[in-house]
Order: sequence, then structure tokens, then C-alpha cells
Amino acid sequence: MSFGFGKEFRITVFGESHGACVGAVVEGCPAGLPLEEIDIQRELDRRRPGGRLASARFETDRVRLLSGVLGGRTNGGPITMLVENQDVDSTWYEENRHLPRPGHSDFPAFVKYGGMNDYRGSGFFSGRMTASLVMGGAVAKRLLSLSGVKVIGHIVQIGETRLQKEVGDQEIEAATLDGAMCADGETSMEFENEIERAAKEGDSVGGVVECRVLNLPAGIGEPFFDSAEALIAHGVFSIPGVKGVEFGAGFGLASMRGSEANDGFVVRNGKVATETNRCGGVLGGLTTGMPLIFRVAVKPTPSIRKAQRTVDLRAMGEAPIAIGGRHDPCIAVRAVPVVEAVAAVCIADLMVRGGKIPRRIGEQNGN
Amino acid sequence: MSFGFGKEFRITVFGESHGACVGAVVEGCPAGLPLEEIDIQRELDRRRPGGRLASARFETDRVRLLSGVLGGRTNGGPITMLVENQDVDSTWYEENRHLPRPGHSDFPAFVKYGGMNDYRGSGFFSGRMTASLVMGGAVAKRLLSLSGVKVIGHIVQIGETRLQKEVGDQEIEAATLDGAMCADGETSMEFENEIERAAKEGDSVGGVVECRVLNLPAGIGEPFFDSAEALIAHGVFSIPGVKGVEFGAGFGLASMRGSEANDGFVVRNGKVATETNRCGGVLGGLTTGMPLIFRVAVKPTPSIRKAQRTVDLRAMGEAPIAIGGRHDPCIAVRAVPVVEAVAAVCIADLMVRGGKIPRRIGEQNGN
Amino acid sequence: MSFGFGKEFRITVFGESHGACVGAVVEGCPAGLPLEEIDIQRELDRRRPGGRLASARFETDRVRLLSGVLGGRTNGGPITMLVENQDVDSTWYEENRHLPRPGHSDFPAFVKYGGMNDYRGSGFFSGRMTASLVMGGAVAKRLLSLSGVKVIGHIVQIGETRLQKEVGDQEIEAATLDGAMCADGETSMEFENEIERAAKEGDSVGGVVECRVLNLPAGIGEPFFDSAEALIAHGVFSIPGVKGVEFGAGFGLASMRGSEANDGFVVRNGKVATETNRCGGVLGGLTTGMPLIFRVAVKPTPSIRKAQRTVDLRAMGEAPIAIGGRHDPCIAVRAVPVVEAVAAVCIADLMVRGGKIPRRIGEQNGN
Amino acid sequence: MSFGFGKEFRITVFGESHGACVGAVVEGCPAGLPLEEIDIQRELDRRRPGGRLASARFETDRVRLLSGVLGGRTNGGPITMLVENQDVDSTWYEENRHLPRPGHSDFPAFVKYGGMNDYRGSGFFSGRMTASLVMGGAVAKRLLSLSGVKVIGHIVQIGETRLQKEVGDQEIEAATLDGAMCADGETSMEFENEIERAAKEGDSVGGVVECRVLNLPAGIGEPFFDSAEALIAHGVFSIPGVKGVEFGAGFGLASMRGSEANDGFVVRNGKVATETNRCGGVLGGLTTGMPLIFRVAVKPTPSIRKAQRTVDLRAMGEAPIAIGGRHDPCIAVRAVPVVEAVAAVCIADLMVRGGKIPRRIGEQNGN
Repeated sequence: MSFGFGKEFRITVFGESHGACVGAVVEGCPAGLPLEEIDIQRELDRRRPGGRLASARFETDRVRLLSGVLGGRTNGGPITMLVENQDVDSTWYEENRHLPRPGHSDFPAFVKYGGMNDYRGSGFFSGRMTASLVMGGAVAKRLLSLSGVKVIGHIVQIGETRLQKEVGDQEIEAATLDGAMCADGETSMEFENEIERAAKEGDSVGGVVECRVLNLPAGIGEPFFDSAEALIAHGVFSIPGVKGVEFGAGFGLASMRGSEANDGFVVRNGKVATETNRCGGVLGGLTTGMPLIFRVAVKPTPSIRKAQRTVDLRAMGEAPIAIGGRHDPCIAVRAVPVVEAVAAVCIADLMVRGGKIPRRIGEQNGN
Repeated sequence: MSFGFGKEFRITVFGESHGACVGAVVEGCPAGLPLEEIDIQRELDRRRPGGRLASARFETDRVRLLSGVLGGRTNGGPITMLVENQDVDSTWYEENRHLPRPGHSDFPAFVKYGGMNDYRGSGFFSGRMTASLVMGGAVAKRLLSLSGVKVIGHIVQIGETRLQKEVGDQEIEAATLDGAMCADGETSMEFENEIERAAKEGDSVGGVVECRVLNLPAGIGEPFFDSAEALIAHGVFSIPGVKGVEFGAGFGLASMRGSEANDGFVVRNGKVATETNRCGGVLGGLTTGMPLIFRVAVKPTPSIRKAQRTVDLRAMGEAPIAIGGRHDPCIAVRAVPVVEAVAAVCIADLMVRGGKIPRRIGEQNGN
Repeated sequence: MSFGFGKEFRITVFGESHGACVGAVVEGCPAGLPLEEIDIQRELDRRRPGGRLASARFETDRVRLLSGVLGGRTNGGPITMLVENQDVDSTWYEENRHLPRPGHSDFPAFVKYGGMNDYRGSGFFSGRMTASLVMGGAVAKRLLSLSGVKVIGHIVQIGETRLQKEVGDQEIEAATLDGAMCADGETSMEFENEIERAAKEGDSVGGVVECRVLNLPAGIGEPFFDSAEALIAHGVFSIPGVKGVEFGAGFGLASMRGSEANDGFVVRNGKVATETNRCGGVLGGLTTGMPLIFRVAVKPTPSIRKAQRTVDLRAMGEAPIAIGGRHDPCIAVRAVPVVEAVAAVCIADLMVRGGKIPRRIGEQNGN
Repeated sequence: MSFGFGKEFRITVFGESHGACVGAVVEGCPAGLPLEEIDIQRELDRRRPGGRLASARFETDRVRLLSGVLGGRTNGGPITMLVENQDVDSTWYEENRHLPRPGHSDFPAFVKYGGMNDYRGSGFFSGRMTASLVMGGAVAKRLLSLSGVKVIGHIVQIGETRLQKEVGDQEIEAATLDGAMCADGETSMEFENEIERAAKEGDSVGGVVECRVLNLPAGIGEPFFDSAEALIAHGVFSIPGVKGVEFGAGFGLASMRGSEANDGFVVRNGKVATETNRCGGVLGGLTTGMPLIFRVAVKPTPSIRKAQRTVDLRAMGEAPIAIGGRHDPCIAVRAVPVVEAVAAVCIADLMVRGGKIPRRIGEQNGN
């Protein structure tokens, strides 16, 4: 049991990269939330393959909302969402199924499942499963929007290129909505160049996604094991390719003194705030009421055309591998809505559990 | 419900910094594991306050093993471990309970609990609760030792000082056992100096802990939400003061090309191995059979003598604060056995769930 | 979060009676299990509406296996199964949505969801959701069959008519497979008569289902809260209409002396067995190795044509109600495969957790 | 992991019959609940051994409240409660550890744990563990009392003797509080006689406990798998000796027609109520607002002096057994507060999850 996540607002994902579909079931969404297919489609479209820097696999990713909604509102039951796979080509995988791709789940999955897992496009280890996360996240975002909570993300590093400027929440939000890589236009162009250079060489490149959750009340999170940080970290490490996460100044805090690292408390507009936000909006695992900010390190796409070393698992002999199939040269780009989705699911769960989201929204004659 | 962690091998922690005790209950430990108080005491002693660079609070931290063991072996039931608090002085907290300490849980906890949480020494948000983690980790380590799995850690950064050399597993293990900060003696001394400088100025300093899990079989971890990375990240973010975690080359992967980042597969001693280990021993959330390696960023101790800004929560007016009480100048130092403990608990859970640890160890006449 | 059940082998159900579909996701099924749509269809057909004594609603209940299977074997991932609803007629419910039907979830659901739950045919409270349980149970049964474990059920009481004879496991199994109500043919006919009498009067009638799990090893079940009895009881009370469950001699044990109730131990074929089985194959929550036997009380179908008293929730005034729509006169009849399904899911979970079912079945080149 | 129960309000139990202690940790109790040791002691005293019809084992069962309470109020953290065992005599068990007692967990536990579980007084399978349930239930009852919810129980059957009269909630409550077996005095005396007769013959006798939860709002319970009935059934089957549970008319419903079984809705004091309560206050798994009523079948104490048949597990040969040690002749008697405790824990969890109990009680300056 490991395809579900969340204690009261919970997502269960299913499907395979080259199977019939990918999908998700969301449990614990309060009844009465306005929800339509377009709410989910909008988020899926942000994640969809396509574009100059993406895989040539063409999927329309048209979602079907199969349960949990009646007359445009959630009914309190499980919300099932499904996207059928269309453009599947397993040829390369059929021919190379005994050659585990470096940087991929192939080898440990082969060991774990005795070779019986779906080897076509990584099966349920595939990045395509992030469509399921995005579907669940779309429901969570819709729910959070009622409380004014926004989850926004963009890219702050691709390869050696880093965003150098401070950017505000509004700029990130604008970038989030119109599909720009980064809140800063110039940096976005440099990111594109970096990705193109790698792609031309048959290579790929990594990146860092920054995500902010805005307008959170203070005190969200459960003490100890269900801290806001613990749950978000758990969630983002479930995204294929993620290798690091940090909150606020993160690893930078290791080289600071306490007097630099601590965020002093001040009164702002009659409310307690911190003058800086090096803690990333979380203290003791609970939100401070300041923006919750975290960054996620995404490794370079492991599937590259360049020759690599591997082992033929039948012959147990070493063998070269040059990966075919269709792959993005930088998975960090499409990871942005996925990271947002995971954060939204975690925060929705914590807000429902903490009593910050009512058990039903609006009502019709209930007593 | 957030003081428990793990699905089959599970730890539940309890207690408060200035209450009667701290303790832990471990469920799901197979029957027949040799276990005595000394196994737990040894790990607790590694975490214990004391020493030139540590808090002046003196606790013997003598553990009592209250259930789950019969005749020196676990009996299959819950293992309860308790340490009574002895050297408690709540004076400073009584006098300053309306002044939330910067960098501490005080403010969001006050909001969450309406002021009714234990304000003395952070209550259950205290670093003292890590003794509970260490007790649970001691059981997990004992269990893992039967499979030859070792969990070792040391410090690789304090403030601006970083370990520059490559160090081997044996050197880390030696450091782990004799309480050295770092596998490299010279670096350890520099770390000490860095901490002393901060302490003298009434300040504190952060650090980075590296942890390695050795001798793991390949294929450990559950797909998607219970990946080895997701669970370990979840666990370590439950440790007070942790603000970042990365596996293998971690954030460094973001600036790499795929051809650099991927670890090629080779055959070594008749088994599949990777020639490098930039993935930190985890691919697709499953172990590769190489050492599992991760690093944890620990912020500087937030409690410092230097004056800081805060807000008096009664008057809602700003107020200076200079923190009394007894505090370590660098919590990263004592975090090492805690990070190991959390990793051990996660790996034990995954190995039990994955069928890699038997449901009982040895047997007497069972059929 | 309450549509999922099980800790390692887990079922999540979704859908509504008058929505697009009903379905289930099964997690934790070992890779390598031979599984095809026909395995699920066979169980669904046993539960399907139709026949002289059943609802006039006509559903072919054709299952689609959407994920988790590759080349006729499970792949270790979530198994998604879907049945589309076809013969939906919500007219009666549209016209009577403010009149809660006696004996139905309508009233408390209205209060809980503020009227926003799906009122058409009880939505996700409907007996139609038991198709989801049957789909999950079909996977569990397939898995258990590899260990020789069988789950069989039949009816032992309808209204005032009770099965009076002792019947053996083989007779029940035969009845289970050919769709007979009861292992005794004569009693089956009396049951039919009892149901017809009720139906003719526009009324319905209750019944008792007996279920046996055969060939279980001793020692299955987890101590205390996850006893075999606790989990099965949890599961069967999730079936709409169930109001009681008892194991072995059950309520009959209350009037016995210990000397009558206890099952003495004997040696049979070189193994420990009990001479009687009044405990129903469970002691201390663990299986004894004897058949696990339990009985489930199912109330009469609450939807009857006869006039009843209810309250118009808009006017808050009393009003008569005569229920239209299409309903079985005795839900106990179709409950048999559902009770079996729930038992199979519980036992599969306990066997996986207890290490009695391997993490993968067969293998292909794994190491 | 099976010693914990509950999703938001959760109890974890620990200890052994002949070990150092029994105890419980309660998580998820809102901060601010007035709670003192006396609240727990009062419930423990109701369960305590002693009295003419009880075991000769003498335990004062003095509880220590070790964490989770500050200044007489819960602090939002885990509440740890401990009772040390005092009057332990394991002689009989040492001498007979290879003779599994009929009707006890001894045999399947021996198989499950390979003989390494605690064989002294059943270890963690012992009825003594119900003290842990009672401690957790005491916290739940205290919490429910703030909402006016009461959980009351008494005995309605001992052996062949059944309570024949209808008794009201007030009479049961009075009986609950003063330790009478049954709400009807005359029946209580007959029950005593029945028990004495069995005891004199070196035998034991079973019984039925009835429990009512009063003043519940309508709509409590989660749909499908976390129905009020499913959770309560799960909980009560975790009590050693329970072999059946039924809600409302329970098994009696099987012989009824729908027109008899359904409870018509009426308006009473401006609120919707049912004219009868054959459903036991639960429809579709949700509370109706009427009293929630269930009955629990408790088997006769399996430990009896009379000679029984068993098997020597070393020699695998049959052997007679006559059980020594100190045992109640009727465990149903002391089960009453235990059944109440389990019901209270389940209802507290459902009320917290359903948003019917606030996350904190009262407050001091929180914002």
C-alpha cells in the first residue's frame, strides 16, 4: 500500500506509462466544492507534453471526471479522474527490456518485482504518473482557493544558470499562469538556451523548482511527524527525479549564525509577522503565517541519447546503451505544476485535519 | 494523530521537555530479537547533553524498558521505553511565556493551541523529544544489524567550514562509534573552533549531517509514496531544526548534465553495481544495493543570548528578547545519532514491509 | 478518508449508484499473480441484479481492468477496475429527494452533507457499491487461491426460516459456485418461498449469511486491534444492510459454560487441531488452523412499496412515503458474494502482512 | 503495527499481564481538556479485579499520567498513562507453558511467534490489557462529556438468564455508575446466582453486554469503511473474549419484514427523530441522532478448573489440563467498562474527524 497519500484529504494514483490510462482518486474532499472537468484540465494542460523543449510524445491528456461530482459540486464521495493514454509506442522498451537504463528505476524494480513489473516506459515509476498527481492537486487547489490560499511555482535554476534577482509573489504567479519557466523573463530565455544546448548534444540537464504557498494562516501542520515540512518533503520525493528539498534558506542555514538565521517577530497590520522569512514560513513544523517557501532539486532526465554503460540482466555482462524513445531534455520544466500539486494536496490535508476547512461547503437545507 | 510514524515497524513518541519524561513505543518489531536496556542506553548516551560544546542541562537519560521484552528477547508486542526528566528548570520560560523566541515553534504553537500547549522548553516541540527518536532508532538498529545493515553518520559542515576530503565508510563508522564529530580528525577540530567562536559571541551556528546506510539489498522501498527517499525525508523533517535534505549529489544534480549525473551499471563481484553513486543509492525510490547516502541541513540553535526582536503576545507590542536557559551552541552536533535513528526506523519499516526481515527471529518449537 | 480499507493489501472503492460508474483500486497485490478480466467478471456475475427475486434494474456489469496487469499477470502496481452504470433511472429520486426513506442513509446523509450528497439511489451509500467490493474481493480470492485458501458462503436464514441441518464445506462450496442460496436444496426452496411471500405483499425480508474461510494456516491475524475478527467485522459492517456479525458459536457462547464453549486440542494427522470449532477458527484474534466461520445478519431491504411514515425535510412536516424505483425484496441473497469478498480482502491483507504470501509470485530473471 | 487504533483520536496500548506494566498513549486529544488522574482512576476502578465474583489477583491499578497534561488541562500532545503490575504470580504458567489452554490464544500465538511471545498470563493477549483500553476510554469519555455525549453499559444476559424488561437510559446510567451488573436489580441478582453456580462447579459462564451512546448528533460516522458500526465493531472485537456484536435489533432483523424493521421518521420537538429505534441509531453507517445501541457477546472465561483436553506442544501428544492461576468466572462482568471505553474512543475519533469536536477547548490569548 503505497499509491495513496494523505490522512483526511487523500490521493490514490493508478495507471502506467504505456498502459490504458493514468488516473487518481481523491478522498476526503468536502461536499459542495464547485468542481468541473475544466478545473482539472487546466492544470493538466500546464503539465502536458509538447512544445519545443519537450518530448515528442503527443498526448491530449483529456480528463474524465468519473465520480464524486453532482451538478458541478463535489458530493462528499471519492472523486475519480482518468486520462486515457493515446500515443503509446513501446518498441524501444520491448527490444531493450534487459538493459536497465542508468539513472532509472529499471534495475531496482527488476530486482524488487522479479522482472514482472511493467518495463514499458518505466510502468508506474514513469514521469507520466505525475499526471495523476496533477489531477489530485487540481482538486486540492480548487479547495484551497476558497480560503484564499495560492500555490505557485517556477524554475530558479537550470544547469549552471541560476535566477539571480529577487522576485515577488505576483511575478511568480504571473509566470505560473502563463507557463513561463521563471518569473524573470530574461532568466527564462537563458534557461531555454541551457536546455537547448544539452538537447543538441543528446544530453539532458537538471534544475531547481521553487514553490510558494501564499495566504496560509499561522498554525497549520501537525506536531512532530506530520509537520508541514515532513509532509511536503514526503510528497515531493514521490515525484520521479526529485533528489533534494529545502525550506526557506535551507542548506544555506547551515553556514549561518543563529543571529542571522532567526527571523525576528514584528507587528505588521496588527498581526504578528516575521521581518525576514529565512525559515520559509515554517517553525516547529507549523506555518508562521508568512509565505511557505521551498525549493526542489530535480535531476537531469536520465534518458539520454548519449552512450552509457549498463549491464545485460540476462547475460549479466556489461553492455553499452543509447536510449531511444521520446524524452524531455529537462524534466524540471514540467515538474513545476507537479510540485505545486503535491504541495496543494499536503496543505489541503493539513487544513482539513486542522479544522481550517469546513467538512462541507455551503449547504442546501441541511440541519 | 501525528506522534506515530511507520506502517509495520512503527514508533510512537511521547513526553515533554519539562514534563515527567520522554519515551517511545515501538510496534511491529519481530519477536525473538535480542534486546536489552544497554542497546538503547548506548545510543542515548551518544545523544546525551554534556561536554564542552553542549547545554549545561544535566540529564543521565537512564532508559527503562517497560514492555515488549522477555528474557532478553523481544516478544512480538509493543516495546515501551522511558527516560525520566531530572534536571528541569522552567524559570526562564515562566517569566517569558508571552515572548515567542525567534526561530522557535513558540509563536505558531501559541496560535495552534490557543496558548495551552506546554510552553516550558518548547514542550513536545523540544529537541529533547529526539531522545524518543533515538530510543526507537536503537531498536531499529538492533534489528537491522541482524541483516548486516549499518546506519552511520557524521558532520560534514559547521558554519562556513566544510569537510573537503572524501572519507570512506569505515572512517565514518569509527567516528560514529567514538563520538567524533567528523570522520576526519582535523576537520573535527575546525568544527569545534567554529562552534566555540559562535558560543563566545552568545551566538550559535548551523551544520550539515551526512548519513549512510550500508549493506542494503537492492529493491528496498515501496513504489510512489513510500519510496525510501520519501520516508526518510518525512522522518528527518520531524527532527527539530532540520531545514533541508538531499540524496546522493542532491542539489548538485541540478547543475549537472544527464551524462554526468547518471551512474552507469557495471558487474562487480558477480553482482550489478553502479560505477559511481550520484543517486545516493536510490533510483525510482528503491535502493540500488549501493550505500544509501543523504545529507541533512540543520539550522543554528535558535536560542541565543544575543538580543533579538520579538512581540509580547499579551500587549501585541514589539519587545526585545535575550534568551536564558541552557542551550547547545550547535544542535547539528547532537543531531547525528538522531538522524541515524530516523533512517534506521524508516529502513526497518521498509525491510519488514518488503519481506526482507522475517516476522520472527529464531524460534522455539513453533510449527 | 474512508473509502479505502487494508494496510498492505488495500482496496479503495469509488462511484455512485446513478453516476457514471462504480469501481475499485487494489493496492499491494504481489506482482506475478495471474489475473484477467474473467476472474473479476465471474464474481461480479454472482452479485449481478437479475433473476426472479431481484431488482428489475438491468446491468450487465461488464468490468474493465484498467491498470496493474501486464500480459495476464499483475505487475505490482495498483489494479484499477471499472464497471459503467447503464440502466439508470433517477426519476423517483428526483421527485422525492426531500423525503428520507425509512431504514436508509438518506436522513443522516442529508444532515452530514447538508443535502449535497448524491440523493439518487443513495449515491455512494448504495448497495450498488458492493460491486466495488466484489471486484476487490475477486483479486483477493485469486491471490488466496495460490495458497489453497477458499472463501465460501451461503444463506442460513431468511425471515423466520432457518437452515436446520449441519452442512459440510463441500456442500457450501458447491452452492457458492452454482448460485444456490443455501447448501441445502430444500431449504433454498423454502427461502425462495419466504422471499416471494414478502415481495407479493410489497414488503421485504431479512436474512443471515454464513461465510467460511478454509485451509487457513494457524497464526494469521495481528494481535490486538488487527485481529482477524476485528478486521472482518470492520469490513462486513461496511456492507450496506449488515447489522450483526458473530464468529463460531457467537451469541450462543453467551449462554454456554466454559466447559462447553472451549474447544479441546487434539492431534489430528500429526497436527494440532480442535475437536470442536465453537470459536469459529479464531482464538486471541489469530486463526487456529480450523475453518474460520462467521455469520452476518442482513436487515430486510428498506425500500418497500408499503406505505411508511417519513418527514418532508423542506416543510419539516410528517408525510407518508411509498417507495418506487426497483429493489430486491431480500438483499441478503445478493450479499453472499459481497461477504465473501470482504472476508477475502481482510484475509489477503493479513496474510501479506504476516509474511504468508510472498511479495511476488514466480519470477523472471530477478536476482 | 496493530496496537494502535483511531485516525485522529488514537489510542496505542502496551504492556503485558505479567510484565512491568500496562499502559496507553492517546494522541489527537484537543488541547485544553480538563483532565486529571482521578478521571482515569475512576474508570479503572470500575474494571478492577476484586469482589466476590472476581479473580483473587489483587491489583490497586493506580494510574500515573506521564505526559500530555499541564496544569490540569491537556496540552495537545500525546497523553501517556501507566499502571504498574504488582500482584504477579507466573508459577502456573512456567510449569505449563507447553500446554495451550483451550479457548485461549496460547496455541495460535505459539505458532505465530514461534514460542517467543510472553506465555505468562497470555502476555499482551491478556484480559489485563483491557486496562489500557479503559485508560484511553477515560480520556475519550472526558472529551465527549463536553458535548453532552454519554456512553453507558450494563449486562443483559449471563448464561441462560436474560434481562426481560425494557430499561431506560437513566436506569442503565445509574447501574453504570454504581457498579451494578444490570439496570434491573432483580436481574442483577439472578446474574450473580448464575455466576456463582458456574464458579462452584469449577466452570465459567458467558454473557452479553449492552452499550448505549446518548446525545449524539445526527450524521456522525464516515461513509463506507469508517462507518460508526464498522469502527465500533473493529474496536470491540479487539477485546479478548468478544465473539459477536449487533446494532439495534441486530440478528433479530434477519427474521423481520422491512415494514417491521424500518423506523419511521417523525418530528419530535421540532427535530427529525425515528418513532422506533430498531436500527440502533445508525443508518448507512451514520448516526441518526437517536441513541446508538449495540450488544456484545462475551464468551465464558476460558480458564476453568475443570479438566480439559489439550496437546503438549513439545511431545505433540495429547494431555489433560486443569487450569490454575486466578481467574474471573465470568469475564462479561468486567467487560462493561471496557466496551464503553472502546465505544467512547471510536465516537471521539469520529467526532474529531467530523469536525464536531473543536481542535482545542477554550483558549488563552490565541489568535
